[in-house]
Amino acid sequence: MNALLRQQTSLTLDLAMQALQAALATAKENQARISIAVVDASGQLIHMAHMDGAPLQSRDIALNKALTAVGFGVSTSAWQARLEKCSEAVRQGLPLQPKMALFGGGEPFRFADQVIGAIGISGASEQLDGQCALAAVERVLAVLAAG
Amino acid sequence: MNALLRQQTSLTLDLAMQALQAALATAKENQARISIAVVDASGQLIHMAHMDGAPLQSRDIALNKALTAVGFGVSTSAWQARLEKCSEAVRQGLPLQPKMALFGGGEPFRFADQVIGAIGISGASEQLDGQCALAAVERVLAVLAAG
Amino acid sequence: MNALLRQQTSLTLDLAMQALQAALATAKENQARISIAVVDASGQLIHMAHMDGAPLQSRDIALNKALTAVGFGVSTSAWQARLEKCSEAVRQGLPLQPKMALFGGGEPFRFADQVIGAIGISGASEQLDGQCALAAVERVLAVLAAG
Amino acid sequence: MNALLRQQTSLTLDLAMQALQAALATAKENQARISIAVVDASGQLIHMAHMDGAPLQSRDIALNKALTAVGFGVSTSAWQARLEKCSEAVRQGLPLQPKMALFGGGEPFRFADQVIGAIGISGASEQLDGQCALAAVERVLAVLAAG
Repeated sequence: MNALLRQQTSLTLDLAMQALQAALATAKENQARISIAVVDASGQLIHMAHMDGAPLQSRDIALNKALTAVGFGVSTSAWQARLEKCSEAVRQGLPLQPKMALFGGGEPFRFADQVIGAIGISGASEQLDGQCALAAVERVLAVLAAG
Repeated sequence: MNALLRQQTSLTLDLAMQALQAALATAKENQARISIAVVDASGQLIHMAHMDGAPLQSRDIALNKALTAVGFGVSTSAWQARLEKCSEAVRQGLPLQPKMALFGGGEPFRFADQVIGAIGISGASEQLDGQCALAAVERVLAVLAAG
Repeated sequence: MNALLRQQTSLTLDLAMQALQAALATAKENQARISIAVVDASGQLIHMAHMDGAPLQSRDIALNKALTAVGFGVSTSAWQARLEKCSEAVRQGLPLQPKMALFGGGEPFRFADQVIGAIGISGASEQLDGQCALAAVERVLAVLAAG
Repeated sequence: MNALLRQQTSLTLDLAMQALQAALATAKENQARISIAVVDASGQLIHMAHMDGAPLQSRDIALNKALTAVGFGVSTSAWQARLEKCSEAVRQGLPLQPKMALFGGGEPFRFADQVIGAIGISGASEQLDGQCALAAVERVLAVLAAG
Protein backbone atom coordinates (compact mmCIF):
# COMPACT_ATOMS: atom_id res chain seq x y z
CA MET A 1 0.00 0.00 0.00
CA ASN A 2 1.06 3.55 -0.75
CA ALA A 3 3.08 4.94 2.17
CA LEU A 4 0.99 8.12 2.09
CA LEU A 5 -2.13 6.17 2.98
CA ARG A 6 -2.93 4.19 6.07
CA GLN A 7 -5.36 1.35 6.70
CA GLN A 8 -7.57 1.25 9.74
CA THR A 9 -9.39 -1.97 10.60
CA SER A 10 -12.59 -1.40 12.49
CA LEU A 11 -15.41 -3.48 13.88
CA THR A 12 -18.64 -3.41 11.89
CA LEU A 13 -22.04 -2.57 13.37
CA ASP A 14 -22.88 -6.28 13.23
CA LEU A 15 -19.97 -7.03 15.50
CA ALA A 16 -20.69 -4.03 17.73
CA MET A 17 -24.24 -5.35 18.22
CA GLN A 18 -22.92 -8.69 19.37
CA ALA A 19 -20.53 -6.97 21.76
CA LEU A 20 -23.34 -4.87 23.19
CA GLN A 21 -25.56 -7.94 23.63
CA ALA A 22 -22.85 -9.63 25.68
CA ALA A 23 -22.47 -6.59 27.94
CA LEU A 24 -26.23 -6.29 28.32
CA ALA A 25 -26.58 -9.96 29.26
CA THR A 26 -23.93 -9.61 31.95
CA ALA A 27 -25.65 -6.53 33.36
CA LYS A 28 -29.00 -8.33 33.49
CA GLU A 29 -27.51 -11.37 35.21
CA ASN A 30 -26.25 -8.98 37.88
CA GLN A 31 -29.39 -6.84 38.14
CA ALA A 32 -27.37 -3.83 37.03
CA ARG A 33 -28.61 -0.86 35.02
CA ILE A 34 -25.96 0.46 32.71
CA SER A 35 -25.26 2.58 29.67
CA ILE A 36 -23.19 1.01 26.92
CA ALA A 37 -21.24 2.87 24.23
CA VAL A 38 -19.37 1.25 21.36
CA VAL A 39 -16.98 3.30 19.22
CA ASP A 40 -15.16 2.28 16.07
CA ALA A 41 -11.39 2.39 15.59
CA SER A 42 -11.49 6.11 14.82
CA GLY A 43 -13.45 6.96 17.95
CA GLN A 44 -16.82 7.55 16.32
CA LEU A 45 -19.88 6.22 18.14
CA ILE A 46 -21.52 3.35 16.24
CA HIS A 47 -23.79 1.70 18.82
CA MET A 48 -25.25 2.55 22.21
CA ALA A 49 -27.90 1.38 24.64
CA HIS A 50 -29.18 2.87 27.87
CA MET A 51 -30.95 0.41 30.16
CA ASP A 52 -34.24 1.44 31.77
CA GLY A 53 -33.45 3.23 35.01
CA ALA A 54 -29.72 3.68 34.49
CA PRO A 55 -28.36 7.03 35.72
CA LEU A 56 -28.58 9.69 33.03
CA GLN A 57 -24.92 10.57 33.52
CA SER A 58 -23.96 7.06 32.50
CA ARG A 59 -24.37 7.92 28.83
CA ASP A 60 -21.54 10.46 28.91
CA ILE A 61 -19.36 8.38 31.20
CA ALA A 62 -19.73 5.26 29.07
CA LEU A 63 -18.80 7.23 25.97
CA ASN A 64 -15.79 8.79 27.68
CA LYS A 65 -14.63 5.34 28.78
CA ALA A 66 -14.97 4.00 25.24
CA LEU A 67 -13.08 7.01 23.86
CA THR A 68 -10.34 6.62 26.45
CA ALA A 69 -9.99 2.92 25.69
CA VAL A 70 -9.80 3.46 21.94
CA GLY A 71 -7.56 6.51 22.21
CA PHE A 72 -4.87 4.82 24.26
CA GLY A 73 -5.48 1.17 23.35
CA VAL A 74 -5.57 -0.09 26.93
CA SER A 75 -8.22 -0.90 29.50
CA THR A 76 -9.34 2.21 31.35
CA SER A 77 -8.66 0.23 34.53
CA ALA A 78 -4.94 0.33 33.68
CA TRP A 79 -4.75 4.07 34.33
CA GLN A 80 -4.57 3.92 38.10
CA ALA A 81 -1.18 2.18 37.87
CA ARG A 82 -0.16 4.31 34.88
CA LEU A 83 -0.89 7.57 36.67
CA GLU A 84 1.20 6.50 39.65
CA LYS A 85 4.27 6.73 37.42
CA CYS A 86 3.37 10.27 36.31
CA SER A 87 4.08 13.62 37.91
CA GLU A 88 1.61 14.97 40.45
CA ALA A 89 0.54 17.53 37.84
CA VAL A 90 -0.36 14.87 35.27
CA ARG A 91 -1.95 12.66 37.91
CA GLN A 92 -4.27 15.50 38.81
CA GLY A 93 -4.63 17.17 35.44
CA LEU A 94 -4.98 14.39 32.88
CA PRO A 95 -8.28 13.01 34.21
CA LEU A 96 -9.78 16.50 33.79
CA GLN A 97 -9.18 16.72 30.06
CA PRO A 98 -12.02 16.20 27.54
CA LYS A 99 -13.04 12.69 26.44
CA MET A 100 -11.27 11.10 29.40
CA ALA A 101 -12.45 8.58 31.99
CA LEU A 102 -9.45 7.03 33.69
CA PHE A 103 -11.17 4.33 35.75
CA GLY A 104 -12.53 0.87 35.07
CA GLY A 105 -15.32 0.13 32.58
CA GLY A 106 -13.72 0.82 29.21
CA GLU A 107 -12.01 -1.84 27.12
CA PRO A 108 -10.46 -1.74 23.67
CA PHE A 109 -11.27 -4.43 21.14
CA ARG A 110 -8.06 -5.75 19.60
CA PHE A 111 -7.55 -7.95 16.56
CA ALA A 112 -4.22 -8.90 15.01
CA ASP A 113 -2.38 -6.29 17.08
CA GLN A 114 -4.69 -3.46 16.09
CA VAL A 115 -7.28 -1.58 18.11
CA ILE A 116 -10.47 -2.09 16.10
CA GLY A 117 -12.83 -0.26 18.46
CA ALA A 118 -13.77 -0.04 22.12
CA ILE A 119 -16.64 -0.36 24.56
CA GLY A 120 -17.47 1.80 27.56
CA ILE A 121 -19.83 0.81 30.37
CA SER A 122 -21.18 2.99 33.18
CA GLY A 123 -23.98 2.79 35.73
CA ALA A 124 -22.97 -0.04 38.03
CA SER A 125 -19.92 -0.38 40.29
CA GLU A 126 -16.52 0.06 38.71
CA GLN A 127 -15.97 -3.67 39.06
CA LEU A 128 -19.26 -4.66 37.47
CA ASP A 129 -18.91 -2.08 34.72
CA GLY A 130 -15.55 -3.64 33.95
CA GLN A 131 -17.02 -7.13 34.01
CA CYS A 132 -19.66 -6.15 31.45
CA ALA A 133 -16.99 -4.60 29.23
CA LEU A 134 -14.84 -7.71 29.43
CA ALA A 135 -17.82 -9.89 28.51
CA ALA A 136 -18.09 -7.82 25.34
CA VAL A 137 -14.39 -8.23 24.62
CA GLU A 138 -14.64 -11.98 25.04
CA ARG A 139 -17.62 -12.12 22.71
CA VAL A 140 -15.77 -10.12 20.06
CA LEU A 141 -12.72 -12.37 20.27
CA ALA A 142 -14.84 -15.53 20.14
CA VAL A 143 -16.86 -14.34 17.16
CA LEU A 144 -13.76 -13.24 15.25
CA ALA A 145 -11.99 -16.52 16.01
CA ALA A 146 -15.03 -18.44 14.75
CA GLY A 147 -15.30 -16.24 11.63
CA MET B 1 -11.00 -10.24 5.53
CA ASN B 2 -13.47 -11.24 8.20
CA ALA B 3 -16.95 -9.99 7.29
CA LEU B 4 -17.37 -8.58 10.79
CA LEU B 5 -14.52 -6.14 10.25
CA ARG B 6 -14.18 -3.30 7.78
CA GLN B 7 -11.14 -1.59 6.33
CA GLN B 8 -10.94 2.16 6.06
CA THR B 9 -8.21 3.72 3.94
CA SER B 10 -7.22 7.19 5.05
CA LEU B 11 -4.72 9.81 4.05
CA THR B 12 -1.71 10.12 6.36
CA LEU B 13 -0.56 13.36 7.98
CA ASP B 14 2.26 13.46 5.42
CA LEU B 15 -0.27 13.52 2.60
CA ALA B 16 -2.50 15.99 4.43
CA MET B 17 0.46 18.36 4.74
CA GLN B 18 1.03 18.24 1.00
CA ALA B 19 -2.66 18.89 0.38
CA LEU B 20 -2.60 21.88 2.72
CA GLN B 21 0.49 23.28 1.00
CA ALA B 22 -1.25 23.13 -2.36
CA ALA B 23 -4.29 24.99 -1.04
CA LEU B 24 -2.07 27.56 0.65
CA ALA B 25 -0.09 28.17 -2.55
CA THR B 26 -3.28 28.76 -4.53
CA ALA B 27 -4.54 31.19 -1.91
CA LYS B 28 -1.27 33.13 -1.98
CA GLU B 29 -1.29 33.32 -5.78
CA ASN B 30 -4.73 34.89 -5.51
CA GLN B 31 -3.97 37.21 -2.58
CA ALA B 32 -6.60 35.39 -0.52
CA ARG B 33 -6.59 34.81 3.22
CA ILE B 34 -8.13 31.51 4.13
CA SER B 35 -8.48 28.85 6.79
CA ILE B 36 -7.74 25.28 5.77
CA ALA B 37 -8.97 22.13 7.54
CA VAL B 38 -8.05 18.57 6.59
CA VAL B 39 -9.93 15.61 8.06
CA ASP B 40 -9.20 11.92 7.70
CA ALA B 41 -11.61 9.30 6.35
CA SER B 42 -13.37 9.04 9.71
CA GLY B 43 -13.88 12.80 9.99
CA GLN B 44 -11.21 13.50 12.58
CA LEU B 45 -9.22 16.71 12.12
CA ILE B 46 -5.59 15.97 11.32
CA HIS B 47 -4.25 19.26 9.96
CA MET B 48 -5.24 22.91 9.87
CA ALA B 49 -3.80 26.32 9.11
CA HIS B 50 -5.25 29.81 9.47
CA MET B 51 -3.61 32.45 7.27
CA ASP B 52 -2.71 35.81 8.81
CA GLY B 53 -5.73 38.10 8.57
CA ALA B 54 -8.28 35.47 7.53
CA PRO B 55 -11.73 35.98 9.12
CA LEU B 56 -11.90 34.30 12.51
CA GLN B 57 -15.11 32.51 11.47
CA SER B 58 -13.22 30.73 8.69
CA ARG B 59 -11.83 28.17 11.13
CA ASP B 60 -15.24 26.71 11.93
CA ILE B 61 -16.57 27.04 8.41
CA ALA B 62 -13.54 25.29 6.89
CA LEU B 63 -13.95 22.43 9.34
CA ASN B 64 -17.68 22.16 8.63
CA LYS B 65 -16.98 22.06 4.90
CA ALA B 66 -14.39 19.30 5.36
CA LEU B 67 -16.80 17.32 7.54
CA THR B 68 -19.61 17.74 5.02
CA ALA B 69 -17.37 16.64 2.16
CA VAL B 70 -16.09 13.56 3.98
CA GLY B 71 -19.50 12.68 5.34
CA PHE B 72 -21.29 12.60 2.00
CA GLY B 73 -18.36 11.96 -0.32
CA VAL B 74 -19.18 14.78 -2.71
CA SER B 75 -18.05 18.34 -3.21
CA THR B 76 -19.91 20.73 -0.93
CA SER B 77 -20.67 22.72 -4.09
CA ALA B 78 -22.92 19.87 -5.23
CA TRP B 79 -25.46 20.59 -2.54
CA GLN B 80 -27.20 23.54 -4.18
CA ALA B 81 -28.48 21.25 -6.95
CA ARG B 82 -29.09 18.41 -4.51
CA LEU B 83 -31.23 20.56 -2.23
CA GLU B 84 -33.36 21.70 -5.16
CA LYS B 85 -34.63 18.13 -5.45
CA CYS B 86 -35.61 18.04 -1.75
CA SER B 87 -38.73 19.24 0.01
CA GLU B 88 -38.83 22.82 1.18
CA ALA B 89 -38.48 21.52 4.74
CA VAL B 90 -35.24 19.69 3.97
CA ARG B 91 -33.96 22.57 1.88
CA GLN B 92 -34.39 24.86 4.83
CA GLY B 93 -33.65 22.42 7.63
CA LEU B 94 -30.67 20.37 6.52
CA PRO B 95 -28.21 23.27 6.36
CA LEU B 96 -29.10 24.04 9.99
CA GLN B 97 -27.84 20.71 11.32
CA PRO B 98 -24.47 20.37 13.07
CA LYS B 99 -21.24 19.79 11.11
CA MET B 100 -22.84 21.01 7.90
CA ALA B 101 -21.75 23.61 5.34
CA LEU B 102 -23.64 23.06 2.12
CA PHE B 103 -21.84 25.50 -0.16
CA GLY B 104 -18.59 25.43 -2.13
CA GLY B 105 -15.15 25.07 -0.58
CA GLY B 106 -15.15 21.47 0.66
CA GLU B 107 -13.84 18.58 -1.41
CA PRO B 108 -13.43 14.89 -0.62
CA PHE B 109 -10.18 13.12 -1.43
CA ARG B 110 -10.90 9.88 -3.30
CA PHE B 111 -8.61 6.97 -4.04
CA ALA B 112 -9.60 3.68 -5.64
CA ASP B 113 -13.28 4.48 -5.20
CA GLN B 114 -12.96 5.26 -1.49
CA VAL B 115 -13.19 8.57 0.34
CA ILE B 116 -9.84 8.81 2.13
CA GLY B 117 -10.37 12.24 3.71
CA ALA B 118 -11.46 15.75 2.81
CA ILE B 119 -10.40 19.39 2.82
CA GLY B 120 -12.41 22.47 3.72
CA ILE B 121 -11.49 26.03 2.77
CA SER B 122 -13.07 29.28 3.96
CA GLY B 123 -12.18 32.95 3.93
CA ALA B 124 -12.26 33.93 0.27
CA SER B 125 -15.15 33.87 -2.21
CA GLU B 126 -17.02 30.61 -2.66
CA GLN B 127 -15.37 30.22 -6.06
CA LEU B 128 -11.84 30.84 -4.82
CA ASP B 129 -12.35 28.68 -1.73
CA GLY B 130 -13.38 25.91 -4.11
CA GLN B 131 -10.37 26.53 -6.33
CA CYS B 132 -8.01 26.17 -3.36
CA ALA B 133 -9.75 22.95 -2.33
CA LEU B 134 -9.48 21.55 -5.86
CA ALA B 135 -5.77 22.39 -5.96
CA ALA B 136 -5.41 20.21 -2.86
CA VAL B 137 -7.37 17.39 -4.51
CA GLU B 138 -5.16 17.58 -7.59
CA ARG B 139 -2.03 17.46 -5.46
CA VAL B 140 -3.28 14.42 -3.57
CA LEU B 141 -4.13 12.59 -6.79
CA ALA B 142 -0.78 13.47 -8.37
CA VAL B 143 1.21 12.40 -5.33
CA LEU B 144 -0.70 9.13 -5.02
CA ALA B 145 -0.32 8.41 -8.74
CA ALA B 146 3.43 9.05 -8.46
CA GLY B 147 3.74 6.93 -5.31
CA MET C 1 9.79 44.44 11.95
CA ASN C 2 10.69 40.84 11.35
CA ALA C 3 8.59 39.43 8.49
CA LEU C 4 7.80 36.35 10.57
CA LEU C 5 5.96 38.48 13.11
CA ARG C 6 2.86 40.58 12.70
CA GLN C 7 1.56 43.55 14.66
CA GLN C 8 -2.05 43.84 15.65
CA THR C 9 -3.35 47.16 16.94
CA SER C 10 -6.27 46.81 19.29
CA LEU C 11 -8.47 49.06 21.35
CA THR C 12 -7.74 49.08 25.10
CA LEU C 13 -10.35 48.44 27.77
CA ASP C 14 -10.34 52.18 28.50
CA LEU C 15 -11.42 52.86 24.95
CA ALA C 16 -13.90 49.97 24.95
CA MET C 17 -15.53 51.46 28.04
CA GLN C 18 -16.00 54.77 26.29
CA ALA C 19 -17.48 52.99 23.29
CA LEU C 20 -19.90 51.09 25.47
CA GLN C 21 -20.95 54.27 27.29
CA ALA C 22 -21.83 55.87 23.99
CA ALA C 23 -23.95 52.90 22.93
CA LEU C 24 -25.65 52.80 26.31
CA ALA C 25 -26.48 56.49 26.22
CA THR C 26 -28.08 56.10 22.81
CA ALA C 27 -30.13 53.16 24.01
CA LYS C 28 -31.36 55.12 27.04
CA GLU C 29 -32.31 58.12 24.93
CA ASN C 30 -34.46 55.75 22.90
CA GLN C 31 -35.92 53.77 25.82
CA ALA C 32 -34.28 50.64 24.42
CA ARG C 33 -32.97 47.67 26.38
CA ILE C 34 -29.93 46.17 24.76
CA SER C 35 -26.95 43.93 25.24
CA ILE C 36 -23.58 45.32 24.22
CA ALA C 37 -20.47 43.28 23.39
CA VAL C 38 -17.05 44.74 22.61
CA VAL C 39 -14.31 42.51 21.19
CA ASP C 40 -10.68 43.36 20.56
CA ALA C 41 -8.93 43.06 17.21
CA SER C 42 -8.41 39.32 17.68
CA GLY C 43 -12.07 38.68 18.45
CA GLN C 44 -11.75 38.19 22.20
CA LEU C 45 -14.46 39.72 24.37
CA ILE C 46 -13.12 42.58 26.47
CA HIS C 47 -16.24 44.42 27.64
CA MET C 48 -19.97 43.72 27.85
CA ALA C 49 -23.11 45.09 29.44
CA HIS C 50 -26.64 43.76 29.54
CA MET C 51 -29.30 46.37 30.32
CA ASP C 52 -32.00 45.52 32.85
CA GLY C 53 -34.82 43.79 31.05
CA ALA C 54 -33.06 43.17 27.76
CA PRO C 55 -33.89 39.78 26.16
CA LEU C 56 -31.54 37.07 27.40
CA GLN C 57 -30.80 36.02 23.81
CA SER C 58 -29.34 39.47 23.16
CA ARG C 59 -26.09 38.51 24.86
CA ASP C 60 -25.28 35.86 22.26
CA ILE C 61 -26.58 37.89 19.36
CA ALA C 62 -24.57 40.95 20.36
CA LEU C 63 -21.43 38.86 20.64
CA ASN C 64 -22.05 37.23 17.26
CA LYS C 65 -22.53 40.66 15.69
CA ALA C 66 -19.28 41.90 17.21
CA LEU C 67 -17.45 38.77 16.02
CA THR C 68 -18.89 39.11 12.54
CA ALA C 69 -17.92 42.77 12.36
CA VAL C 70 -14.35 42.12 13.53
CA GLY C 71 -13.95 38.97 11.41
CA PHE C 72 -14.87 40.61 8.13
CA GLY C 73 -14.06 44.23 8.90
CA VAL C 74 -17.37 45.62 7.69
CA SER C 75 -20.68 46.62 9.25
CA THR C 76 -22.93 43.63 9.74
CA SER C 77 -25.59 45.67 7.94
CA ALA C 78 -23.49 45.37 4.76
CA TRP C 79 -24.20 41.66 4.47
CA GLN C 80 -27.65 41.92 2.95
CA ALA C 81 -26.17 43.48 -0.18
CA ARG C 82 -23.11 41.24 -0.04
CA LEU C 83 -25.18 38.06 0.11
CA GLU C 84 -27.19 39.14 -2.92
CA LYS C 85 -24.03 38.71 -4.98
CA CYS C 86 -23.47 35.18 -3.65
CA SER C 87 -24.86 31.84 -4.78
CA GLU C 88 -28.15 30.68 -3.33
CA ALA C 89 -26.20 28.09 -1.31
CA VAL C 90 -24.01 30.72 0.36
CA ARG C 91 -26.95 33.06 0.82
CA GLN C 92 -28.72 30.37 2.77
CA GLY C 93 -25.75 28.62 4.38
CA LEU C 94 -23.36 31.33 5.50
CA PRO C 95 -25.71 32.91 8.07
CA LEU C 96 -26.01 29.48 9.74
CA GLN C 97 -22.31 29.11 10.49
CA PRO C 98 -20.94 29.69 14.01
CA LYS C 99 -20.12 33.20 15.27
CA MET C 100 -22.18 34.79 12.52
CA ALA C 101 -24.91 37.43 12.63
CA LEU C 102 -25.37 38.90 9.17
CA PHE C 103 -27.79 41.71 9.98
CA GLY C 104 -27.46 45.21 11.38
CA GLY C 105 -26.10 45.99 14.84
CA GLY C 106 -22.41 45.12 14.54
CA GLU C 107 -19.75 47.66 13.61
CA PRO C 108 -15.97 47.38 13.37
CA PHE C 109 -13.77 50.04 14.91
CA ARG C 110 -11.15 51.17 12.40
CA PHE C 111 -8.03 53.25 12.93
CA ALA C 112 -5.37 54.00 10.35
CA ASP C 113 -6.77 51.39 7.97
CA GLN C 114 -6.77 48.61 10.58
CA VAL C 115 -9.66 46.93 12.34
CA ILE C 116 -8.89 47.53 16.02
CA GLY C 117 -11.99 45.83 17.45
CA ALA C 118 -15.75 45.79 17.06
CA ILE C 119 -19.03 46.32 18.89
CA GLY C 120 -22.21 44.29 18.67
CA ILE C 121 -25.64 45.45 19.84
CA SER C 122 -28.82 43.44 20.20
CA GLY C 123 -32.18 43.82 21.90
CA ALA C 124 -33.86 46.68 20.07
CA SER C 125 -34.88 46.96 16.43
CA GLU C 126 -32.23 46.32 13.79
CA GLN C 127 -32.21 50.01 13.04
CA LEU C 128 -31.83 51.12 16.65
CA ASP C 129 -29.24 48.43 17.37
CA GLY C 130 -27.27 49.81 14.44
CA GLN C 131 -27.69 53.39 15.68
CA CYS C 132 -26.26 52.43 19.09
CA ALA C 133 -23.32 50.70 17.42
CA LEU C 134 -22.63 53.72 15.23
CA ALA C 135 -22.71 55.99 18.28
CA ALA C 136 -19.94 53.83 19.72
CA VAL C 137 -17.94 54.07 16.49
CA GLU C 138 -18.26 57.86 16.47
CA ARG C 139 -17.12 58.06 20.06
CA VAL C 140 -14.08 55.90 19.34
CA LEU C 141 -13.12 58.01 16.33
CA ALA C 142 -13.58 61.24 18.27
CA VAL C 143 -11.57 60.07 21.23
CA LEU C 144 -8.74 58.77 19.05
CA ALA C 145 -8.69 61.98 17.00
CA ALA C 146 -8.48 63.99 20.22
CA GLY C 147 -5.76 61.71 21.66
CA MET D 1 1.19 55.37 19.99
CA ASN D 2 -2.12 56.54 21.31
CA ALA D 3 -2.55 55.42 24.94
CA LEU D 4 -6.04 54.14 24.15
CA LEU D 5 -4.62 51.57 21.75
CA ARG D 6 -2.33 48.64 22.38
CA GLN D 7 0.02 46.73 20.11
CA GLN D 8 0.17 42.96 20.14
CA THR D 9 3.04 41.21 18.39
CA SER D 10 2.19 37.75 17.18
CA LEU D 11 3.88 34.98 15.26
CA THR D 12 2.77 34.61 11.65
CA LEU D 13 1.50 31.38 10.10
CA ASP D 14 4.90 31.07 8.37
CA LEU D 15 6.63 31.04 11.73
CA ALA D 16 4.03 28.72 13.25
CA MET D 17 4.67 26.24 10.44
CA GLN D 18 8.38 26.23 11.21
CA ALA D 19 7.64 25.71 14.90
CA LEU D 20 5.33 22.80 14.13
CA GLN D 21 7.95 21.21 11.88
CA ALA D 22 10.52 21.32 14.68
CA ALA D 23 8.12 19.66 17.13
CA LEU D 24 7.22 17.04 14.54
CA ALA D 25 10.86 16.24 13.83
CA THR D 26 11.57 15.73 17.53
CA ALA D 27 8.57 13.45 17.86
CA LYS D 28 9.69 11.36 14.88
CA GLU D 29 13.24 11.04 16.24
CA ASN D 30 11.70 9.62 19.41
CA GLN D 31 9.11 7.37 17.76
CA ALA D 32 6.37 9.38 19.43
CA ARG D 33 2.89 10.08 18.07
CA ILE D 34 1.64 13.49 19.09
CA SER D 35 -0.86 16.22 18.42
CA ILE D 36 0.51 19.73 17.97
CA ALA D 37 -1.43 22.98 18.41
CA VAL D 38 -0.06 26.46 17.75
CA VAL D 39 -1.96 29.55 18.91
CA ASP D 40 -1.21 33.20 18.22
CA ALA D 41 -0.67 35.86 20.87
CA SER D 42 -4.41 36.31 21.34
CA GLY D 43 -5.01 32.59 21.84
CA GLN D 44 -6.55 31.86 18.45
CA LEU D 45 -5.55 28.56 16.85
CA ILE D 46 -3.51 29.11 13.72
CA HIS D 47 -1.91 25.72 13.03
CA MET D 48 -2.35 22.10 14.09
CA ALA D 49 -1.26 18.60 13.13
CA HIS D 50 -2.26 15.21 14.47
CA MET D 51 0.25 12.43 13.79
CA ASP D 52 -1.03 9.07 12.52
CA GLY D 53 -1.96 6.92 15.49
CA ALA D 54 -1.76 9.62 18.16
CA PRO D 55 -4.49 9.32 20.84
CA LEU D 56 -7.64 11.13 19.76
CA GLN D 57 -7.70 13.01 23.08
CA SER D 58 -4.37 14.63 22.23
CA ARG D 59 -6.05 17.19 19.99
CA ASP D 60 -7.93 18.83 22.85
CA ILE D 61 -5.11 18.45 25.35
CA ALA D 62 -2.56 20.00 23.00
CA LEU D 63 -4.87 22.97 22.43
CA ASN D 64 -5.49 23.37 26.15
CA LYS D 65 -1.75 23.34 26.82
CA ALA D 66 -1.16 25.97 24.15
CA LEU D 67 -3.95 28.14 25.56
CA THR D 68 -2.59 27.76 29.10
CA ALA D 69 0.92 28.67 27.96
CA VAL D 70 -0.20 31.75 26.04
CA GLY D 71 -2.63 32.83 28.74
CA PHE D 72 -0.12 32.89 31.57
CA GLY D 73 3.10 33.33 29.62
CA VAL D 74 4.93 30.47 31.32
CA SER D 75 5.63 26.84 30.55
CA THR D 76 2.72 24.62 31.56
CA SER D 77 5.32 22.56 33.45
CA ALA D 78 5.75 25.47 35.87
CA TRP D 79 2.28 24.96 37.33
CA GLN D 80 3.07 22.06 39.63
CA ALA D 81 5.33 24.29 41.72
CA ARG D 82 2.95 27.25 41.33
CA LEU D 83 -0.03 25.28 42.61
CA GLU D 84 1.92 24.15 45.67
CA LYS D 85 1.90 27.76 46.85
CA CYS D 86 -1.88 28.00 46.46
CA SER D 87 -4.69 27.03 48.80
CA GLU D 88 -6.01 23.48 48.61
CA ALA D 89 -9.14 24.87 46.98
CA VAL D 90 -7.19 26.53 44.17
CA ARG D 91 -4.92 23.52 43.79
CA GLN D 92 -7.95 21.37 43.22
CA GLY D 93 -10.20 23.83 41.47
CA LEU D 94 -8.00 25.71 39.01
CA PRO D 95 -7.11 22.69 36.84
CA LEU D 96 -10.87 22.09 36.42
CA GLN D 97 -11.51 25.40 34.69
CA PRO D 98 -11.95 25.63 30.90
CA LYS D 99 -8.96 26.01 28.55
CA MET D 100 -6.56 24.73 31.22
CA ALA D 101 -3.92 22.02 31.17
CA LEU D 102 -1.54 22.55 34.06
CA PHE D 103 1.11 19.97 33.24
CA GLY D 104 4.10 19.81 30.92
CA GLY D 105 3.88 20.06 27.13
CA GLY D 106 2.87 23.70 26.59
CA GLU D 107 5.39 26.47 26.00
CA PRO D 108 4.97 30.15 25.21
CA PHE D 109 6.95 31.75 22.40
CA ARG D 110 8.56 34.96 23.62
CA PHE D 111 10.20 37.72 21.65
CA ALA D 112 11.50 41.01 23.02
CA ASP D 113 9.75 40.40 26.35
CA GLN D 114 6.38 39.71 24.78
CA VAL D 115 4.43 36.50 24.46
CA ILE D 116 3.91 36.16 20.71
CA GLY D 117 2.11 32.80 20.75
CA ALA D 118 2.41 29.30 22.18
CA ILE D 119 2.61 25.64 21.31
CA GLY D 120 0.93 22.68 22.98
CA ILE D 121 1.98 19.05 22.55
CA SER D 122 0.18 15.93 23.72
CA GLY D 123 0.34 12.21 23.02
CA ALA D 124 3.70 11.11 24.40
CA SER D 125 5.01 11.23 27.97
CA GLU D 126 4.92 14.56 29.77
CA GLN D 127 8.69 14.76 29.42
CA LEU D 128 8.74 14.02 25.70
CA ASP D 129 5.77 16.30 25.04
CA GLY D 130 7.76 19.03 26.75
CA GLN D 131 10.87 18.23 24.72
CA CYS D 132 8.92 18.58 21.45
CA ALA D 133 7.50 21.90 22.63
CA LEU D 134 10.96 23.18 23.56
CA ALA D 135 12.31 22.15 20.14
CA ALA D 136 9.65 24.42 18.65
CA VAL D 137 10.63 27.26 20.99
CA GLU D 138 14.29 26.90 20.00
CA ARG D 139 13.39 26.94 16.33
CA VAL D 140 11.32 30.08 16.76
CA LEU D 141 14.10 31.84 18.61
CA ALA D 142 16.72 30.75 16.07
CA VAL D 143 14.62 31.83 13.11
CA LEU D 144 13.82 35.19 14.68
CA ALA D 145 17.46 35.78 15.60
CA ALA D 146 18.49 34.97 12.02
CA GLY D 147 15.76 37.18 10.53
